[in-house]
Amino acid sequence: ARPRVGYFYSGKSTNQLLGEQIRKLYVKDYKSRPVVVYEETSVYDAICTIFLEDVGSLFVVKKAGYLSGVVSRKDLLKATMGKQDLTSIPVGIVMSRMPNIVTCTLEDTLYHAAKLMMRAQVDSLPVVRPFSEDPAQLEVIGRITKTTITKVFVELGENMTL
Amino acid sequence: ARPRVGYFYSGKSTNQLLGEQIRKLYVKDYKSRPVVVYEETSVYDAICTIFLEDVGSLFVVKKAGYLSGVVSRKDLLKATMGKQDLTSIPVGIVMSRMPNIVTCTLEDTLYHAAKLMMRAQVDSLPVVRPFSEDPAQLEVIGRITKTTITKVFVELGENMTL
Repeated sequence: ARPRVGYFYSGKSTNQLLGEQIRKLYVKDYKSRPVVVYEETSVYDAICTIFLEDVGSLFVVKKAGYLSGVVSRKDLLKATMGKQDLTSIPVGIVMSRMPNIVTCTLEDTLYHAAKLMMRAQVDSLPVVRPFSEDPAQLEVIGRITKTTITKVFVELGENMTL
Repeated sequence: ARPRVGYFYSGKSTNQLLGEQIRKLYVKDYKSRPVVVYEETSVYDAICTIFLEDVGSLFVVKKAGYLSGVVSRKDLLKATMGKQDLTSIPVGIVMSRMPNIVTCTLEDTLYHAAKLMMRAQVDSLPVVRPFSEDPAQLEVIGRITKTTITKVFVELGENMTL
C-alpha cells in the first residue's frame, strides 16, 4: 500500500526517530547574545552586569577582543565570601581561564552542546569561532545555556497530535 | 506487508511523536534530592551550603517542616552587594517567599515543569505535596532544575539508529 502523503514507513523505532530529530537541531539556530566583560572589570561591576543583563554567566575577553575566561554566579559568590573590597578585585582573578573553558561552534548540534554542559558541569557555553586577528585565539559570537535547552525541550513537547 | 516486529505504522509525523514522547516523562521519575535550609539560616551559611551541596538554589522551610521560600544564587549575590555582615542576615529576608513560589508535583510531566521554569524565569522548582500536619502547607520532597531537563534532552538525543 502506498503511504499517505507526508508520512512514510521508515523501519525505525520511535526512540531512534526522536534521537535523530533532536540531533538535527543546531547551535546556530538557537544561540543567544553573549554578554562579555574585560579581565580588568571588578567583581562588583561583574555582579551588576549579571543583574542588568539578566544572565547567569559572563564571558571574559582580553582588551584585544578574544576569549580569556568565563565567570559564573558561583565564581562571583565565592569571591564575595572573602573579606576583600569587591570593587578592587578584577574578574580575571576569580574566573575560569582558557584553555580550561568548554566552548561550542555554530555548526555543533544542540545535543552536543548539552552533552558538553553536563560533562563539564557548567550552565553555559560560549559559542566561538577563530579570532580574525589571531586564529590561535577564539572570538565569542554567542551563548548556549541550560535555559536554551529547556526552552527547546518545551517547544518540542508542544508538538501535539492533530 | 506486515511490519517488522517492534515497529508499526502510526500515521503520525515525527514531530508529533516527539512531542508525545516528551509529554510522557514524569517529574516522579526524574526529580533529584532537595537541599533545604531554615529561614533563620544566615546568608553566609546558605552560600556555604550552595557550594557543599553543589546546587543552584536552596528551598527554605519553617522549623515545623513546610515550604516557606526559595533562595537562588542571584538572591544570595544580591545580599552580598550590601555592606552588612552576611553571618547576621537570615535567608528569610533575601529569599522569594510563599505564595510567590512556583512548584510542581510528582504527577506533573517534565514538560509542564519545564514550561513553568521558563514562564517564571527560575532555574529550579521544588517538588511538593500537601504537608501531613497541615494540608494548607506544602512539604518539599524533591527538586527539578534546568539541569534535569538538559540531562533528559541528552538522553533523548542519544537514541541512535542501529
